[in-house]
Amino acid sequence: MALMERRGEEVTRAKLAAELGVTRTRVESVFPEERDLLEAVTGEWFAPKLAVMDEVMATDLPPRRKMYEFFVRRFQLLRENYRTDPASFMLYVEMGERYFEYAQGYIDLADHYLCELIVEAQAEGHFEGLEINMVLSLINQSIVSYIQPYLIAMIGERLTEDKLAYLIDALFDGLSATDRGAKGTKGLRAA
Amino acid sequence: MALMERRGEEVTRAKLAAELGVTRTRVESVFPEERDLLEAVTGEWFAPKLAVMDEVMATDLPPRRKMYEFFVRRFQLLRENYRTDPASFMLYVEMGERYFEYAQGYIDLADHYLCELIVEAQAEGHFEGLEINMVLSLINQSIVSYIQPYLIAMIGERLTEDKLAYLIDALFDGLSATDRGAKGTKGLRAA
Repeated sequence: MALMERRGEEVTRAKLAAELGVTRTRVESVFPEERDLLEAVTGEWFAPKLAVMDEVMATDLPPRRKMYEFFVRRFQLLRENYRTDPASFMLYVEMGERYFEYAQGYIDLADHYLCELIVEAQAEGHFEGLEINMVLSLINQSIVSYIQPYLIAMIGERLTEDKLAYLIDALFDGLSATDRGAKGTKGLRAA
Repeated sequence: MALMERRGEEVTRAKLAAELGVTRTRVESVFPEERDLLEAVTGEWFAPKLAVMDEVMATDLPPRRKMYEFFVRRFQLLRENYRTDPASFMLYVEMGERYFEYAQGYIDLADHYLCELIVEAQAEGHFEGLEINMVLSLINQSIVSYIQPYLIAMIGERLTEDKLAYLIDALFDGLSATDRGAKGTKGLRAA
């Protein structure tokens, strides 16, 4: 990853061997296939994000506070990653698009944790009448700016901890299965 | 634009002249500078989105319904654009990133309209205690998946009219200046 960050481009096993001045055989003993190298890079990228999620999940905070921490700590990590080295950050964003399959397991785990938080919140009366998977999708969509690396790079300066807290409070107090008027069944002219 | 969509790449004035079999002078009489071509392409891209926004703003729908329509109609247009020709859609997304300055005026206009809707909603008691610009930012961030072309391409199949309506209702009923517990001032351990 240091090599990729220095060169500003993806590094294959062949390039890695050349740069380190070791044989391909030596590199292949660590990464038998190209995909093993990509998996290792993906794992390194996600490790600190997983660590903060685990840390938050282990607390006994109330659901609303817990969900805020669940997102804000990852956001702060990503923002720090971006500010430290924007070019490398964008390289990882591009690689993440190209090799999305490797990230899937980590995203599934984050969704699994979020489902636990949703269940805790529903036990307290929030998100009334909505299926867990619907709430999962709605929350992920509405705070996507705070966890999607591409958006953190694009609109990062407009993202703040305070705004994220407003959004979490809005979701906890405003999200339910009841249609309160946004989606009318009538046409555009009907007031 | 037909040429760009057929070739799958950005077209300069030189390429345009060559492809049409006309002189550069002829093309330059329509587009004196390269930026005039880019401005025209940007205008064509935004024209149908502006039209639906104007249509919605002209109605006398209640604020909540109006805001939903304000977003859902653009979302439906973008989704249709993407489904019709994903490759061209991604080309315009890339050009939009590269030539963001040309889009700024259209984005400012959309924000201006949204501010009008926010003022109408605040007059009915929504978004209590929040500055207009704060509400503008929070709404744009929370429904970004439905208006940002890149996200429509990436997560389009998870975006639905129903979900957008849930989010608008959540914002109207849940967004206010009062901290209701998401952002604790205490540490991670404090329950």
